[in-house]
Amino acid sequence: MLTIRPAESADVSLILSLVRELADYEREPHAVCATEADLLRDGFGAQPRFHCVIAEWEGQPAGFALYFYNYSTWEGRPGIYLEDLYVRPAFRKRGIGRSIFVWLARLAVKEDLGRIVWQVLDWNQPAIDFYRSLGAAPGSEWRTMRLTGPGIRKLSD
Amino acid sequence: MLTIRPAESADVSLILSLVRELADYEREPHAVCATEADLLRDGFGAQPRFHCVIAEWEGQPAGFALYFYNYSTWEGRPGIYLEDLYVRPAFRKRGIGRSIFVWLARLAVKEDLGRIVWQVLDWNQPAIDFYRSLGAAPGSEWRTMRLTGPGIRKLSD
Repeated sequence: MLTIRPAESADVSLILSLVRELADYEREPHAVCATEADLLRDGFGAQPRFHCVIAEWEGQPAGFALYFYNYSTWEGRPGIYLEDLYVRPAFRKRGIGRSIFVWLARLAVKEDLGRIVWQVLDWNQPAIDFYRSLGAAPGSEWRTMRLTGPGIRKLSD
Repeated sequence: MLTIRPAESADVSLILSLVRELADYEREPHAVCATEADLLRDGFGAQPRFHCVIAEWEGQPAGFALYFYNYSTWEGRPGIYLEDLYVRPAFRKRGIGRSIFVWLARLAVKEDLGRIVWQVLDWNQPAIDFYRSLGAAPGSEWRTMRLTGPGIRKLSD
């Protein structure tokens, strides 16, 4: 009943809808500036900037994962950075999130990737519990820093 | 006196030395399993998994930055993930770290990249102060999760 398949260029409208639904869930409904053209260019060209898998339940789009490759200089090999993972509310409690992680773990084994890394909102306890049930551990000592548009332009001048 | 240049394949021995020196500083001297062959294969092949710049002070290797491209589905464009940044102790207090960030910011402007993201150890106050002086802000609500070798294999079975 559940199918997990790599996304195709014809899926960009669906992917953007899922990205927006996830942003709503993350309490950032206005954060999504991406367009279908952006996702088509960056995900389905000669050198894809990201990869995406779609989960379908009896043919209905139920969720997705979007990832790219990171790199560990300690391990000397790439890994998976999971940027987005989302299962639509109507399709939850059916093991779809776990099945997507199994799909990613098999990809990691096949391609000899060292790790799967992602981030979770600290108030999202159901997600944290779910990730712990998969065997994932939170990084304790590392804090994420970022420099965005205005800071980048200031520094580049 | 300071030169910042993209690394070449002839630099892999130097890069590995700098990765090891950084791991020592991060109190994880035994964490580096990477070999020169790994870095050569992953950084200097047809589809590089990472990119690297070398900072030289009067021709002496003084530091480096190693990065790859991440992707923001909110922005619909790639960004820079800075995996490693390191300046050798003998070359500190000369603005080399800042100059490397300026180099990265100019790359971001040139390639229309939305953000530069990295992580810092929470006890590394000198680094946190330096990053704040560049205009960077720590992410507050996001916690990093990871699944490594044993967890990946268990899930993939």
